[in-house]
Amino acid sequence: MVQPIVDVSPPKWHLGHTTWFFEEFVLSKFYKGYKRFHDHYAYVFNSYYESVGKRVVRTDRGNLSRPCVEDIYKYRSYVTNHMNEFLNQTLTKEHTEIIEIGIHHEKQHQELLLTDIKYILGNNPLLPVYDIDAIDALVEPQNQEWIEVPEGIYKIGHSNEGFSYDNEKPQHKVYVEPYSISNKLVTNGEWLEFINDNGYNQVLLWHTEGWDWVQKNNICAPHYWFNENNQWKHYTLNGVQNIDPKAIVTHISYFEAFAFAQWCKKRVPTEFEWEIAAPNFNFGKRWEWTESAYLPYPNYQKPPGAIGEYNGKFMVNQKVLRGYSIATPDHHARLTYRNFFHAPLRWQFTGLRLAQSI
Amino acid sequence: MVQPIVDVSPPKWHLGHTTWFFEEFVLSKFYKGYKRFHDHYAYVFNSYYESVGKRVVRTDRGNLSRPCVEDIYKYRSYVTNHMNEFLNQTLTKEHTEIIEIGIHHEKQHQELLLTDIKYILGNNPLLPVYDIDAIDALVEPQNQEWIEVPEGIYKIGHSNEGFSYDNEKPQHKVYVEPYSISNKLVTNGEWLEFINDNGYNQVLLWHTEGWDWVQKNNICAPHYWFNENNQWKHYTLNGVQNIDPKAIVTHISYFEAFAFAQWCKKRVPTEFEWEIAAPNFNFGKRWEWTESAYLPYPNYQKPPGAIGEYNGKFMVNQKVLRGYSIATPDHHARLTYRNFFHAPLRWQFTGLRLAQSI
Amino acid sequence: MVQPIVDVSPPKWHLGHTTWFFEEFVLSKFYKGYKRFHDHYAYVFNSYYESVGKRVVRTDRGNLSRPCVEDIYKYRSYVTNHMNEFLNQTLTKEHTEIIEIGIHHEKQHQELLLTDIKYILGNNPLLPVYDIDAIDALVEPQNQEWIEVPEGIYKIGHSNEGFSYDNEKPQHKVYVEPYSISNKLVTNGEWLEFINDNGYNQVLLWHTEGWDWVQKNNICAPHYWFNENNQWKHYTLNGVQNIDPKAIVTHISYFEAFAFAQWCKKRVPTEFEWEIAAPNFNFGKRWEWTESAYLPYPNYQKPPGAIGEYNGKFMVNQKVLRGYSIATPDHHARLTYRNFFHAPLRWQFTGLRLAQSI
Amino acid sequence: MVQPIVDVSPPKWHLGHTTWFFEEFVLSKFYKGYKRFHDHYAYVFNSYYESVGKRVVRTDRGNLSRPCVEDIYKYRSYVTNHMNEFLNQTLTKEHTEIIEIGIHHEKQHQELLLTDIKYILGNNPLLPVYDIDAIDALVEPQNQEWIEVPEGIYKIGHSNEGFSYDNEKPQHKVYVEPYSISNKLVTNGEWLEFINDNGYNQVLLWHTEGWDWVQKNNICAPHYWFNENNQWKHYTLNGVQNIDPKAIVTHISYFEAFAFAQWCKKRVPTEFEWEIAAPNFNFGKRWEWTESAYLPYPNYQKPPGAIGEYNGKFMVNQKVLRGYSIATPDHHARLTYRNFFHAPLRWQFTGLRLAQSI
Repeated sequence: MVQPIVDVSPPKWHLGHTTWFFEEFVLSKFYKGYKRFHDHYAYVFNSYYESVGKRVVRTDRGNLSRPCVEDIYKYRSYVTNHMNEFLNQTLTKEHTEIIEIGIHHEKQHQELLLTDIKYILGNNPLLPVYDIDAIDALVEPQNQEWIEVPEGIYKIGHSNEGFSYDNEKPQHKVYVEPYSISNKLVTNGEWLEFINDNGYNQVLLWHTEGWDWVQKNNICAPHYWFNENNQWKHYTLNGVQNIDPKAIVTHISYFEAFAFAQWCKKRVPTEFEWEIAAPNFNFGKRWEWTESAYLPYPNYQKPPGAIGEYNGKFMVNQKVLRGYSIATPDHHARLTYRNFFHAPLRWQFTGLRLAQSI
Repeated sequence: MVQPIVDVSPPKWHLGHTTWFFEEFVLSKFYKGYKRFHDHYAYVFNSYYESVGKRVVRTDRGNLSRPCVEDIYKYRSYVTNHMNEFLNQTLTKEHTEIIEIGIHHEKQHQELLLTDIKYILGNNPLLPVYDIDAIDALVEPQNQEWIEVPEGIYKIGHSNEGFSYDNEKPQHKVYVEPYSISNKLVTNGEWLEFINDNGYNQVLLWHTEGWDWVQKNNICAPHYWFNENNQWKHYTLNGVQNIDPKAIVTHISYFEAFAFAQWCKKRVPTEFEWEIAAPNFNFGKRWEWTESAYLPYPNYQKPPGAIGEYNGKFMVNQKVLRGYSIATPDHHARLTYRNFFHAPLRWQFTGLRLAQSI
Repeated sequence: MVQPIVDVSPPKWHLGHTTWFFEEFVLSKFYKGYKRFHDHYAYVFNSYYESVGKRVVRTDRGNLSRPCVEDIYKYRSYVTNHMNEFLNQTLTKEHTEIIEIGIHHEKQHQELLLTDIKYILGNNPLLPVYDIDAIDALVEPQNQEWIEVPEGIYKIGHSNEGFSYDNEKPQHKVYVEPYSISNKLVTNGEWLEFINDNGYNQVLLWHTEGWDWVQKNNICAPHYWFNENNQWKHYTLNGVQNIDPKAIVTHISYFEAFAFAQWCKKRVPTEFEWEIAAPNFNFGKRWEWTESAYLPYPNYQKPPGAIGEYNGKFMVNQKVLRGYSIATPDHHARLTYRNFFHAPLRWQFTGLRLAQSI
Repeated sequence: MVQPIVDVSPPKWHLGHTTWFFEEFVLSKFYKGYKRFHDHYAYVFNSYYESVGKRVVRTDRGNLSRPCVEDIYKYRSYVTNHMNEFLNQTLTKEHTEIIEIGIHHEKQHQELLLTDIKYILGNNPLLPVYDIDAIDALVEPQNQEWIEVPEGIYKIGHSNEGFSYDNEKPQHKVYVEPYSISNKLVTNGEWLEFINDNGYNQVLLWHTEGWDWVQKNNICAPHYWFNENNQWKHYTLNGVQNIDPKAIVTHISYFEAFAFAQWCKKRVPTEFEWEIAAPNFNFGKRWEWTESAYLPYPNYQKPPGAIGEYNGKFMVNQKVLRGYSIATPDHHARLTYRNFFHAPLRWQFTGLRLAQSI
């Protein structure tokens, strides 16, 4: 039920919120005679509209002592049962489209559920193990090679076959200069070199806003890292581990990714460079920061109604991440998928693949 | 497990903290061979010293996902069992004194536990009932009378017979001018007159700091009050109720108590005036704000060691409250008891008894 | 000497800072035997590096009671005289390049000087006239037409003939979809329609961050606007004037530009669309917001040394503005010039030209 | 014109404000036919009421670029001339009383003017000399002695002969326990012992709020002190000087005064103890912190009207200081004078005289 920072939601809220999505956008709209489980749950579990309540000054998700976990499970059963009934009816395209979005929405929250739990436990003074079998430090198996891509006009974005979010569309052409991109992700060992070369203290490597963030928060290593008796360690889902130099670095911000790339005279790839080259390399262990700002594609159309709020309203001051991570559920990954976070955020399984112009 | 504001602790923390008190100050100091239940619990449940941990940047009590409630109950059983064993040994005066403080400390937290729960539920959008039988709105049975007290030198403070906290001692003489003090507490009906006379908008009634607080927080009524369709209501432990004009007003800040007294051309009594006159009136429903700043009595001695931190370090920028409230456990009240809170705080069952100089 | 917000510097600081640029990067580096005017001025007037002083906890530019204006003029004369001497020597390409940057740097500050003065006076309760002849409300002379641009690959950026900043280079190709762009800027009359249609209260028109900004700051009109007796007025450099519906709207944020465009079902152009079409329309009255994030061009090279800090370190979380404004000095404008500010800022003479996809 | 912290006003504002006092409370009320110098100056220079302007979102005193210093001098001449005319008329007791308050009010601001200038210059990176002859570091001439005072009832407060502020009245009786008080103020040498004994790092010496203040602001010495090459120095009105161990310590907060007293097992005297013993010792170099909270005396009467706002509204969360300082104008000192500041403030010439119970 905890919410240590505003970006992290309490686990039980995810459960209620993904359930509410089906109640709000499917059952109460399309299933005749459906009666909501509880009048106030829409208010509690709605993340879309500003919470303006006549009786409550302000509510934080972390302060939701009620409904209790048991009640939320009852809510979930109730909605699941009604969804099962509804699915036995004849469904229109409008129905299946919104249900499909609801499923993908839930997958997004499955990933957030795990990363939020990691954050919550990783900030607990007892640093408890989440799952002894959950290995989140992964060795990078590739040796360094550079995949070259010639200049040209490339098609970017989703072709409209199968499901995608609105922000991946429409497919459009982008002119790209020649570049090469790494076949592997940056490792802890490489990151330790950056730390040991005083990278976190060299102002010229950083954006002004990145430098302010480093100073204000005393950042000196990726999130979850700490130094004990001259040994770097980090909190992982299976507890505290020594840093393995061969493993992929994770829980870094865009600010750090940029500074690291400056330090080694490379750069962070654009999302277009990533999407063009991705079929030639392995990905899927870390969300990979790109240099691209999260902006609408040419001819982007915001869907009508509340669903239209899903993506477009976030298209300012965020950076695009591409690929997917070990926390992403199956079938939720696409070459064209555009994830996005603010530059300082680190609680997702983020990583860095370098690029360079040629 | 929630902590909606910094003054309010999550219920399970109270449970662990009061348990830890006995482990820290009794068992681990005096019970030979005692082994702590868990190495890190002292860190988690210690409210006395700054939490400086080598591995955790910062921890909030509201984010304590671990230890879970079940573990805290185990901790409590463990400590209770060892305390029972220890109590069967021959105890010195030093032992009994610290145990007595531990018991009183726990009673304080019993009260906080209830007021914190009220705050947590009262900020929940569902406004859940805590206990259908918990009546916290109480009718004031007295008609207005004024108890006159002549000028003179009075003895103030605890005589040293029986238990008291250090801040009630030593007993000392105070010269007091003649005054009269109300036999009853201010009621909701009287407070509604203040509201309707625009009391919350008359700057000249308020301290500068009080006025800033009103403006910044849009204060227009006691805490838990809200106006729905021209009917004033409030959240109580047995749910939302209409405001009863005959009931005692509660959940007011010192700032409001002062402004109300200014408005009706009376004043808030000093803690000395309160203590002298208290045997002549009923008290015990509400903590009663006084005009007195929380300061050490002449010849106040801070006890040695960590126990010495108990009271003295708070003796600046707080106001004294006297009496006790419906949430106070039995045998935790004394005529000389000095409670203290910051001027804007309202989540305790606070109230106001007026005085005037004569 | 005032600094009402962190983005605005006191006028005398601009004077000292532009002078310091020549002392720091020209005279003390290249003019043999040059003696600095004052040992501490580099510390006072340096905007490039973090102000870390051993004797001063922190200094704000707005608190610079010393040096006084007279001393800064002496400093300026001293540096000007030495620059004149230096210019009579044989100069290398390295010399002329940095001097040219210094001149352009000073022109930038000339514009800031005027907009900062407007901000300072416009926040003064007396709303004083700056210059009775300074007309900053300008009628838009064009009738609405739409300039169509076909899809294709276009060259963007500076060709390297004549001066430009590093951020305009290198010239490179961009693929652009077909679009049309307005021949005129949005007017006050059009903005009043947006206000009257409740545009500032329609959450769906805004980015989430824009909406938060509107709510937190009670934004309901462009900066400097106020409503008095049902008449919209604004502060201008020649004092308070009624809003002229035919004049160009100014002092709007990117957030407002975006919401306005959403409201009229158009969009904010990208900086590429702007640069391609700009030769076909009049510009130069307002800095025109674009949809583009401020990012490096492909193959962007940061110059070595402190000058390299000039632009690159700001390339995150800012939006590009194109064109120039009535406050821009002569010869400081270029078709390829990239100005940049954070999305909520409004104190520059900003405006909006609409675009649409076709 | 600068205002580095909210407690410090720009010098020119003091000039306008003290002038405005006579215009507002004397001339415009009692001098028939008086025409205000400028309609908006009441708004600009009024410190009594909330600045709520229909055209200005918010104004800070430090941002008052207008009126300029010259205009304020004209304003002052104008008001002085009219006051001179008015003083030639027949004055009632009401007139002379408010004029007397105006004169004392101006003396208060004369002191603030000097301490504010010291603060402004002392925060300037150039650390400029204010006046080469202004010696504010003063050697304490007394050897340590303790003045004993027997218990008893003492008269406290102003007898009503001659001028006093409302907060010094009425005279009343206070019962005081036996105590002794130092004949001298604490010196820099004694304070250095406290620093060297790690006093700023011993949590048990401090109030909780004091400790938070120390931690948050990295307090490690009195204000204006800094350590350069192992030599303690401080900024004074005649520039930077080495710390003289024989001089009186100054620019300390109440929090520090309390911690220092705890450290040497003494205490800060109450304002009553101070007033009783003051005739037996020298005072007038430093405002002396007392343990007393700033509260109304028994039977305190707030004067009617705006003048009533003068003192009473500050009577919460502040500490009383007694005596006067080297910055206090002549004839502005009284044995019964009650100055008051918040516990962390240090920019006045504050000092500490120790007491102890006997």
